Amino acid sequence: MDGEGLSSPVSFLKERLGVLADEPVLRAYEAWWAREGRPISEGVDRAGTPWLKMFDRLGTRVDEILYPPGYKTLLHQGYQAGVVWRVFETASLVPSYLLGYVTSFYDSGLYCPYVVSLATAVALEKYGTESVKARFLPELLRRDASVWQGATWMTEVKGGSDLGTAVETRARPAGDRWHLTGEKYFASNAGAELALVAARPEGAPRNVRGLALFLVPRYREDGGLNYTIRRLKDKIGTRSVPTGEVEFHESEAYRLGEQEEGIYLIMEVLNLSRVANSIGSVALTQRVLADAWSFARERMAFGKPIGEHPLLRRQLEERVAQWEDAFALAWEAVALLERVWRQTPPYSETYPLFRLVAHLAKYWTAEVAVQTARWGIEVYGGIGTLTEFGMERWLREALILAIWEGTPHRQLLDGLEVMERKGAHQALLAYLRPLADPRELERMTARVEAYLQLPPSEKEAQVEGLFRDLASFTARTLRGKLGLR
Amino acid sequence: MDGEGLSSPVSFLKERLGVLADEPVLRAYEAWWAREGRPISEGVDRAGTPWLKMFDRLGTRVDEILYPPGYKTLLHQGYQAGVVWRVFETASLVPSYLLGYVTSFYDSGLYCPYVVSLATAVALEKYGTESVKARFLPELLRRDASVWQGATWMTEVKGGSDLGTAVETRARPAGDRWHLTGEKYFASNAGAELALVAARPEGAPRNVRGLALFLVPRYREDGGLNYTIRRLKDKIGTRSVPTGEVEFHESEAYRLGEQEEGIYLIMEVLNLSRVANSIGSVALTQRVLADAWSFARERMAFGKPIGEHPLLRRQLEERVAQWEDAFALAWEAVALLERVWRQTPPYSETYPLFRLVAHLAKYWTAEVAVQTARWGIEVYGGIGTLTEFGMERWLREALILAIWEGTPHRQLLDGLEVMERKGAHQALLAYLRPLADPRELERMTARVEAYLQLPPSEKEAQVEGLFRDLASFTARTLRGKLGLR
Amino acid sequence: MDGEGLSSPVSFLKERLGVLADEPVLRAYEAWWAREGRPISEGVDRAGTPWLKMFDRLGTRVDEILYPPGYKTLLHQGYQAGVVWRVFETASLVPSYLLGYVTSFYDSGLYCPYVVSLATAVALEKYGTESVKARFLPELLRRDASVWQGATWMTEVKGGSDLGTAVETRARPAGDRWHLTGEKYFASNAGAELALVAARPEGAPRNVRGLALFLVPRYREDGGLNYTIRRLKDKIGTRSVPTGEVEFHESEAYRLGEQEEGIYLIMEVLNLSRVANSIGSVALTQRVLADAWSFARERMAFGKPIGEHPLLRRQLEERVAQWEDAFALAWEAVALLERVWRQTPPYSETYPLFRLVAHLAKYWTAEVAVQTARWGIEVYGGIGTLTEFGMERWLREALILAIWEGTPHRQLLDGLEVMERKGAHQALLAYLRPLADPRELERMTARVEAYLQLPPSEKEAQVEGLFRDLASFTARTLRGKLGLR
Amino acid sequence: MDGEGLSSPVSFLKERLGVLADEPVLRAYEAWWAREGRPISEGVDRAGTPWLKMFDRLGTRVDEILYPPGYKTLLHQGYQAGVVWRVFETASLVPSYLLGYVTSFYDSGLYCPYVVSLATAVALEKYGTESVKARFLPELLRRDASVWQGATWMTEVKGGSDLGTAVETRARPAGDRWHLTGEKYFASNAGAELALVAARPEGAPRNVRGLALFLVPRYREDGGLNYTIRRLKDKIGTRSVPTGEVEFHESEAYRLGEQEEGIYLIMEVLNLSRVANSIGSVALTQRVLADAWSFARERMAFGKPIGEHPLLRRQLEERVAQWEDAFALAWEAVALLERVWRQTPPYSETYPLFRLVAHLAKYWTAEVAVQTARWGIEVYGGIGTLTEFGMERWLREALILAIWEGTPHRQLLDGLEVMERKGAHQALLAYLRPLADPRELERMTARVEAYLQLPPSEKEAQVEGLFRDLASFTARTLRGKLGLR
Repeated sequence: MDGEGLSSPVSFLKERLGVLADEPVLRAYEAWWAREGRPISEGVDRAGTPWLKMFDRLGTRVDEILYPPGYKTLLHQGYQAGVVWRVFETASLVPSYLLGYVTSFYDSGLYCPYVVSLATAVALEKYGTESVKARFLPELLRRDASVWQGATWMTEVKGGSDLGTAVETRARPAGDRWHLTGEKYFASNAGAELALVAARPEGAPRNVRGLALFLVPRYREDGGLNYTIRRLKDKIGTRSVPTGEVEFHESEAYRLGEQEEGIYLIMEVLNLSRVANSIGSVALTQRVLADAWSFARERMAFGKPIGEHPLLRRQLEERVAQWEDAFALAWEAVALLERVWRQTPPYSETYPLFRLVAHLAKYWTAEVAVQTARWGIEVYGGIGTLTEFGMERWLREALILAIWEGTPHRQLLDGLEVMERKGAHQALLAYLRPLADPRELERMTARVEAYLQLPPSEKEAQVEGLFRDLASFTARTLRGKLGLR
Repeated sequence: MDGEGLSSPVSFLKERLGVLADEPVLRAYEAWWAREGRPISEGVDRAGTPWLKMFDRLGTRVDEILYPPGYKTLLHQGYQAGVVWRVFETASLVPSYLLGYVTSFYDSGLYCPYVVSLATAVALEKYGTESVKARFLPELLRRDASVWQGATWMTEVKGGSDLGTAVETRARPAGDRWHLTGEKYFASNAGAELALVAARPEGAPRNVRGLALFLVPRYREDGGLNYTIRRLKDKIGTRSVPTGEVEFHESEAYRLGEQEEGIYLIMEVLNLSRVANSIGSVALTQRVLADAWSFARERMAFGKPIGEHPLLRRQLEERVAQWEDAFALAWEAVALLERVWRQTPPYSETYPLFRLVAHLAKYWTAEVAVQTARWGIEVYGGIGTLTEFGMERWLREALILAIWEGTPHRQLLDGLEVMERKGAHQALLAYLRPLADPRELERMTARVEAYLQLPPSEKEAQVEGLFRDLASFTARTLRGKLGLR
Repeated sequence: MDGEGLSSPVSFLKERLGVLADEPVLRAYEAWWAREGRPISEGVDRAGTPWLKMFDRLGTRVDEILYPPGYKTLLHQGYQAGVVWRVFETASLVPSYLLGYVTSFYDSGLYCPYVVSLATAVALEKYGTESVKARFLPELLRRDASVWQGATWMTEVKGGSDLGTAVETRARPAGDRWHLTGEKYFASNAGAELALVAARPEGAPRNVRGLALFLVPRYREDGGLNYTIRRLKDKIGTRSVPTGEVEFHESEAYRLGEQEEGIYLIMEVLNLSRVANSIGSVALTQRVLADAWSFARERMAFGKPIGEHPLLRRQLEERVAQWEDAFALAWEAVALLERVWRQTPPYSETYPLFRLVAHLAKYWTAEVAVQTARWGIEVYGGIGTLTEFGMERWLREALILAIWEGTPHRQLLDGLEVMERKGAHQALLAYLRPLADPRELERMTARVEAYLQLPPSEKEAQVEGLFRDLASFTARTLRGKLGLR
Repeated sequence: MDGEGLSSPVSFLKERLGVLADEPVLRAYEAWWAREGRPISEGVDRAGTPWLKMFDRLGTRVDEILYPPGYKTLLHQGYQAGVVWRVFETASLVPSYLLGYVTSFYDSGLYCPYVVSLATAVALEKYGTESVKARFLPELLRRDASVWQGATWMTEVKGGSDLGTAVETRARPAGDRWHLTGEKYFASNAGAELALVAARPEGAPRNVRGLALFLVPRYREDGGLNYTIRRLKDKIGTRSVPTGEVEFHESEAYRLGEQEEGIYLIMEVLNLSRVANSIGSVALTQRVLADAWSFARERMAFGKPIGEHPLLRRQLEERVAQWEDAFALAWEAVALLERVWRQTPPYSETYPLFRLVAHLAKYWTAEVAVQTARWGIEVYGGIGTLTEFGMERWLREALILAIWEGTPHRQLLDGLEVMERKGAHQALLAYLRPLADPRELERMTARVEAYLQLPPSEKEAQVEGLFRDLASFTARTLRGKLGLR
């Protein structure tokens, strides 16, 4: 990738992937962002968190979210381009992830509502009863501004990762539906017309097996609010996307799938968004590199552009290489998910391989994004610390990507589990064999095997080092698959 | 350091340094912060950037800075405790750096005004004429709320590091003083009663040799404003400290030292603040570790505090060790500066050694602070991304520390220069010999020598790797000097 | 009042009232404000609404209110000076209203917490059982920073004035106490340790007779939160005082007085605060006049200070006179309340007279404050429209005073009721007889009588004109009582 | 006007004026606002003041104004509809004032840029040299988003009204143009591509005769910034329109008209905007009434909508009548300006009559707007004091209208001058004779004549009372001309 190429996400995708599904759509979408979306996105970030109008002037609870002007313009651009509906038209996730890459290059946070809407539609389509699907699915697949949005609300205030014990939202049967009562502490895309909600049916055990997945519309059948929003949260990034605390009081809900499958369905939802998070992280990394490069070739110091100083040039080259590797890893996660996303439990043998790659990708791409964004601030120097010049925004966004959909710890420990319980590392190393340098592969294999012999507690303590090496090795190896520079 | 110990900066200093100058003062200062200063600091950060009142209601330009209530309370606590006056009373910088460590644990940004005030007083005392000293020095040494503040304004909009070409502020002789005209783009502690300002006398060459250092009071002798503040900047960190764009229009100024010495004097000013930056970075790192630890021992997941999960425990241990190493490095910079700070050009042989250690310390401690703060956000998980829980503030502050007083690039390249031109690495390695593991020292020596044989451009390209190793080695080695855990 | 005199609220009180209870206390309090409180108050207003910390980092609901730094300093100054405790020490409201006048001159909004705390203490002392008094009253009467605050929460979202139907908060007996469930939409001084709350016991009628008054502590006996705060509201004035939406969920409560007396007790609470509102409005008017005058004598236009231009001079004179009249009216309300505040239902004959005067005073003083503040903006001209110069703040504060404790409509209609049902106008006119110009009194008497003959609907429609005349006449007449300039 | 009619500014204009120029254009414009513009306007007000980007990331001064997203959408709607170009196409101001009325109903502040752009175009067309007109006028008359904006910057920091002494901006001849140096303190529509600027040519006297009017483009001929913006001001209203402090440093300028005519040209500019201010005030009054009415018919108290309570109903009726009168007065100012706006000095006999009516209209319509908006807050009650419900915004906007283009004092004193020096009151009374009730006219005539016999200082002191009566009388009388309800 030369410097100029850094500024176009579609050109990069094209170079890496060869053929792009819907290339004209992607080109038009990118062009719109470059021309119109970019300044709107900057203005929306400057305007900060949206605002919750809780009551109308007559005292009726309405919980209307007031966005900075322009946010809806940005938002509908992606829905119209097909972040959701194309998946159902083409029976492939690829068009959505491609659009997500372009979105994330321009506005990393905005990809979030698309992903949760897609995850909602997929879960509904796979696990909804016919009548529930007939009623709600078409709303999520509209192609105009009347499209409904989805959301995925799992975690609660007392714990993020530990869903099994932390979910206190209760579900009670109520005729052909359920009633939910409880609250969600980090409800992204609050205000969505349909939400996937993890809850515990009465009598179910207080562990992950006791969870079920429900579909909760924003409005009750009688038109009343079906959930309330206690407040919107002041996040450091993705400021325009409302993350709220949501309360359910006997809220109407529809269970998706069987109760025993609940945790599997929840994991399926997370699969989609973890892969999206990886794609978004790589795109954000490209954005940082593009901004840093365009600055470095213009900013003068000691008689020449700073981009021509050997130290900065070397750092840029190394970071570009790392980004390209990271893309290969993230795209492999897409490719594997494409093979398993329509499966239902019990899954095929590919599923554990996918899960390991997804954990590696989620962990590693976010790490790369954070480190690159932090470096971008250094490149900008003093103005990197000023909100006015935008680079600090990319770090704020990257920090969110590293936390969302599971912190690094979560990825590492869940990845370890899928290695230990399903031998996913063997599948991975076998998969990489045709592509890898044999000696490197051998070394990596030995490293993993030795690691797995450690006592349990020591294994956990050392997991980050192992995963860093394994992710980096996998990324580097997979890049060969996509073709060299 | 056990977990409890993390919460007290003075206890840590005591453990490391054995004897503390003015221990009761430090204890009282810490106690005040723990009890009263801490919530004020949080409120001040929440209130954001101070506000510039440019005109009074009659249309007279006043450039008054309006701080969030409480800021002045914080500010004067440190001046009264002696961040400036104790240096002159004891003829030692140590009391000031100790107070700076405690300050930075509680409010990293607040250390900035103390450092620039101290630097102003030191430069004035060393290089001012008797009449200028008599007029201004006592104002900086007051022990009550009437104390004057200093400031150090060097860089300009067109360039940070490259002072030689970027400084466009001109100085013109005017009787027994000078008139300055120009502007400074990053003027920290704007509103200070006295500022050190780098400017170029008429006719001086357009390189670093053409710079001289001036003392500029806030008010003219006739009482009028002597410099104006165009605006305050919206920084991501140290929000309460006003950083402004400052304009000089025929501003009254007093040259410090001889013109030819200008760049040396400027470097002396930077020496003080780079070392302070290192101390501040280490203190901030302690704060992150303290907050992370106190969270981790209370937050439950999977049936036990997250601090008892092996992965997190290991990470914490490693980061604690890294922080303790970093402290040893920073404190060595203090110790060496203590030996050279009263010297004038030409300096002793210790000076290059000091400079190399200062560059290593500035670079490495800020790096540790940034990485630790970023990890602290991960430990907090979702709430780490919310402004409300404070951890993200430490990352914002750390990012500033990494940029202020010279970016990493600047430290690396200036450090390289002092190695190449003064052989400072030889002095350093000799200095470490009694403390180091002989084989490690040998390896490091070989590594440095091989590196220095590289072609110039390649040398510059690889400098970061070398410095990371050298800093880390030096820090680890020096820790032995301070006594083990 | 000459111009200089405008700048001292205590000097004005002294001039008007002759002897001041606790004059040294008032002087010291004023001096503190002039020296220290004033800039803090400006900073607090600039910092805006306080901030609600709803959960701690472990996910426990805490509802802690984070104030701008400095707010607590302001707040405790008044409690220490005796806005509450002096009333109980002296068995007189006068010292509190005097302190309230001084407070309101400097920070109109800050008077609010004092008034509601006083009202809480008075109601508790008059109507609490011995055990409840013993437990809570001393907390409200402390003289140091550990003092508890009170609050008075009556209205709900569906209606302000119409308490009889709009109060939906329910009370259920629970042993020796009650449990309250419901919400209050405008809960001033949210976060108070004790609140007076209007609620409807189960089975009570849905009108004003169905209301009872309860005391609700912030914390349950077991230490848990006894009420939650849904959010703080973004008001145009009194920004530093937290007004919240408060939720009760089976909150522990203690009924004050008998159930049948509920509405009387609620009215007694309102009496205290309406009179305080009048005092605050007059003090705010003085502040506007003081600021306008000091500006007008310095700002030059057409060769002389604008205060010497005949038009502005005349306007100032007229507004000063109107303010002095308004003070006389407000102080009469204080004097009458002093006679009735310890009575319990059924009240003495003075009570209707007091009520009419209180309605006139609340209505008229707020009207004067709003009109004067609006004129103050005109005097400032362009800078009057800038937030930076403070005058617009007085209008924001005055607008709040006009609404709080009953809108103008409410005062007018309640005043009409007390005339019609209790003949309070006759008492008033008789009371004014010794002071009034006989012909004016006769005219006014005829005007009132003719008005009261109107058909009901027309009477209501014309009530504002009547009250404006009656208030203005009463104010002008009473001023004579206080002695002339 | 019935309640429903209040919600449509175009319907009101139609009812009053009978035939509307370009009615379809107005209807479409109103429909766009009702559907799309209104929520954008609310979001823009919430987002606050726009933001000044002073330097780009390379350190080049750019002074770019960053608006909240959506502002430009609003702005261009009016330019496209023809607030400027239609005046030149139709040779009539009427279409612009009609569009201004509709604009002001929806977003009072947004009318400001239209007015100053129109005033710039008119002055340029009347007084520019052919070459200057050829170069700049077409830019102001574009019909698409590339249209240039104008601005009118007269007053300086030391004084608003007193232009004669307060203008310190100096003009120096420089070939075929001028160079301006100085600053303007209230520069509305800062960032405009062309500004009308009052300045004092070297050697000209320090009074109003010494002023000349200049055209100043934003960019120099060489592409550089021709003026800089020191900062944007934080106003209480019209937040989205950038009002800045502007600095000229040898800025390129083109004189309009002859130097001796300067003050006349400046007055012509003010004529246009004072009349626009009147139109805007009346439209804003309609908006308040519309919002209050729609609230009052839905909000329940004591068993019925508050709009059916006699007091509120009566107040609404009286305010509606006052608004309709005020419209008649404002529209008369439009009609008279339409007769004189193309005249050049010396003007026709109609000119003094126009000036008196314009002063009366500016004064009175703003007064009505402020009082109505303040009443609107009362109608809303508690929620009127919350920023969230919008009514308080109308008061903020009205306060600005009362100050802009001359405070009430200015209107009164300038109106008095035109009566005394030109006998404009006689022209006015003669003009009203055919419409007025003869006895009322006689009374008014006597009142004016008696007043004019007062000693000068007393005349000035009493001017507000006279003007209130005269304005109110004129408004009431003129309403007959427009046809009755």
